[in-house]
Amino acid sequence: MTANKDWAGDPQNASTDGEFIRDATYIEDRITADVPSGTTVDQDDGTVHWPVEAGRYRLMAARACPWAHRAVITRRLLGLEDVISLGLAGPTHDVRSWVFDLDPDQKDPATGLHRLQEAYLNRFPDYPRGITVPAVVETESRKVVSNDYPSIVRDFQTEWTQFHREGAPDLYPLAHREEIDTITRRIYTEVNNGVYRCGFAGSQQAYNEAYERFWATMDWLEERLTTRRYLVGEHVTFADIFLFVTLVRHDAVYYSHFKTSRNKISEMPALWGYLRELFQLPGFGDTTDFREIKEHYFIVHKEVNPTQIVPQGPDLAGLATPHGREALGGQPFAEGVTPPGPVPAGEEVKNPENFQVELFG
Amino acid sequence: MTANKDWAGDPQNASTDGEFIRDATYIEDRITADVPSGTTVDQDDGTVHWPVEAGRYRLMAARACPWAHRAVITRRLLGLEDVISLGLAGPTHDVRSWVFDLDPDQKDPATGLHRLQEAYLNRFPDYPRGITVPAVVETESRKVVSNDYPSIVRDFQTEWTQFHREGAPDLYPLAHREEIDTITRRIYTEVNNGVYRCGFAGSQQAYNEAYERFWATMDWLEERLTTRRYLVGEHVTFADIFLFVTLVRHDAVYYSHFKTSRNKISEMPALWGYLRELFQLPGFGDTTDFREIKEHYFIVHKEVNPTQIVPQGPDLAGLATPHGREALGGQPFAEGVTPPGPVPAGEEVKNPENFQVELFG
Repeated sequence: MTANKDWAGDPQNASTDGEFIRDATYIEDRITADVPSGTTVDQDDGTVHWPVEAGRYRLMAARACPWAHRAVITRRLLGLEDVISLGLAGPTHDVRSWVFDLDPDQKDPATGLHRLQEAYLNRFPDYPRGITVPAVVETESRKVVSNDYPSIVRDFQTEWTQFHREGAPDLYPLAHREEIDTITRRIYTEVNNGVYRCGFAGSQQAYNEAYERFWATMDWLEERLTTRRYLVGEHVTFADIFLFVTLVRHDAVYYSHFKTSRNKISEMPALWGYLRELFQLPGFGDTTDFREIKEHYFIVHKEVNPTQIVPQGPDLAGLATPHGREALGGQPFAEGVTPPGPVPAGEEVKNPENFQVELFG
Repeated sequence: MTANKDWAGDPQNASTDGEFIRDATYIEDRITADVPSGTTVDQDDGTVHWPVEAGRYRLMAARACPWAHRAVITRRLLGLEDVISLGLAGPTHDVRSWVFDLDPDQKDPATGLHRLQEAYLNRFPDYPRGITVPAVVETESRKVVSNDYPSIVRDFQTEWTQFHREGAPDLYPLAHREEIDTITRRIYTEVNNGVYRCGFAGSQQAYNEAYERFWATMDWLEERLTTRRYLVGEHVTFADIFLFVTLVRHDAVYYSHFKTSRNKISEMPALWGYLRELFQLPGFGDTTDFREIKEHYFIVHKEVNPTQIVPQGPDLAGLATPHGREALGGQPFAEGVTPPGPVPAGEEVKNPENFQVELFG
C-alpha cells in the first residue's frame, strides 16, 4: 500500500517492543451521489465531497498491492470499468513512489504521470505521508481525490449505483452490513494487516505474538468456512473480497517472506476450497498477477530479502482445480445477478500463469 | 558445515556468474582397521592413517548441520555410541567457529573445548580453512583427526566393523556400492548442495538455474521412489541417509530460507511417504532437532535473513503419520538386522517436538 519509505529505517512503523504499526492516515475525500455535477461540497471535518461522474476519475492501482486489489475486484464485479478508468503502477516502487513503469515511456497514458507521487503533490504540494494505492485521481487535473481505501471501495458500491452494470451484485447488502463490518474489522486487523505484523516484526517476541494472533483468526475462519460457503450470508460480499486479497497472496508470498508459515492455505481444507472458488470467479483470478505480486514483495522489501531474488515457486496450479464448495449450498451471486463479462481489452494481467489462461481464456 | 566466514563477503564461494561454489578441501586423515594400535601410518599423499580404538575419538557434530547429521545417524545405526563419543556444538556458530555453547560453562565436557576451532589449531596452528562439522577429534590430545565428511561416515561402516553392535545393518553392501556411489554423487551435487546453490545464488539467473536443477533431480527421485521403497536395493543404505538429511530440513528451512519453494516435500507423495518412514525409524527422527536446525539457518545466515527472526512454522506433525510404504514390499533392515535401541542417556535431542516424544518416547 505505502511507498514513501523503507520500513527498516522508519521508527514510526515500529512500537518500542518491535510491533509493526501501520500509518493509517489518509486523504479522506469521497465521491458521493448527493453532490451536484460540476460542484464540490466542503464537509465540516475538512474533507471534500466530489460528484459521481462517468469518465472524470481514474483508479490508480498496482497488481501487487492487496489494498488496491480490493478496489480492482470491486470495480470489475460492479461493471464500473467504462465509468472509472484504471491506471496500473508497476510492482517495484522506489522509496518515493509507485511508478508507472509498465506503460510506454513510463507514463500513465491517461494522465501522463510518471510517479504517482506527482498526483499527490498536485493536490498537496507538501504532502508528507505515504504515496499509496489505491488512489482515485481526477484525470484532467491529475490531482488525488482520495487514497482512503475503505471508503473508495464502499462508495463504488453505495454511491456509484447509477453506473453499475446490469446484473451487478450487491456486495454490501443492508441486511448484512453490521455482520460484514464486524467480520471485516477482524479480517483487517488480524489477517490483512496481520501478515505485515508477522513480516515486519522488529523482534522475535513481536513476531511470535503476531504469528499466534494471525493463526488464531485463520483457524477461526477455517472453522467458519467449513459449514458456510461464504463469510456472510449466502453470496459473495465485501467480506469475501477483503479476505481473498490476502489469501491469494499467502502461499505465494507471505508464507515465506513474512514467515506466516504454520501452513499453506492449500493445507487448510475449507480455506483452500473457498480460495479456489473465489479465484475461479471472474473478477478475482483474472485480476491476480502472481509475477507482479512476488516481484513487489521480494524486491521492494530489501530489509527482509536483501538478495532481492524472487522465488520461482510455489506451484499454484492447484488454484484451478475443482473446489467442491457447491456441496455447502448457496451460490456466488444472488438470483438475477450475473458474473462480470471478460476483462476489458487492455486490462488483462500482464503475466498470467498457464492455469489462468486455461481458466479465463 | 562451515563456520569460518560469512558467505556474503566471501568471493571464493561465488563464481563470476553468481553461482555458489562450496569449498571442498578437508583434513583427509582416516581411521583404518589396518593400523596397529598405538601407532599411526603416514601415507604417500601426506595424510595419516590412525588406528581403530574404542574410546580414543570423539565425533564433533551439531544437530543443525546436515553433513554432521549423516555421521550421527550412521554412528547410531551401527551402535558405535559406546566406542566413539559425541560432542555437540550449538546451532548458532559465529564467523570463527562452531561453539560448545549448549554445554555447562560453554565447554565440551570431554575435551574442555569452547570453540571447535581450538581443535583445528591444536593440529594445525595456521589452519586456514573453514571450521566444519562433522569432525573427528582425538579426545586426549584435543586435535582434529579428520573433517572429511565422506570418509568419516564410510569408515564407520567399513573400518569399525569389530565394534559394530549385534544386529547392525550393512549400510554400504558390496553388491550395491557402485549404484550407491552413483546415486549419492547425484544427491550430493543436486540435492544436498543443490539447496545451498539455490539459497546462496548471487544473482536471479544463478538462482533460477539452481532451482531448475534442484527440482529436476527431485522429480527424478519422486519417480524412482514411487516404485522403490528405498533408493538402492531392498533396505536402508547410505544413499537413504544422505538424502534424508536434506529432505528432513526441506520444509522446515530450505523451502523458504533457500527459496526451493516449488513444493513442500509433504506435497510430493512418494518422497513424503519415504521421508516419513525414515523419520520414524530409530536413528533418524530421534536425532533430528528442528529447533536447532531452524535457529542455525535463520540466525547464522544474516545475509539472507537480516532480521534473524526464526519462523514458528511449519507444522511438521505429519511426519509422525502412517507412511504406507509397506505396500512397496521390502523392509528397512535385512534379515537378522535389528533397529538400534533407545538413544543413549545424555544424547537425546534437546528440543523434541510433541510428535517426536510420542514416536520415540
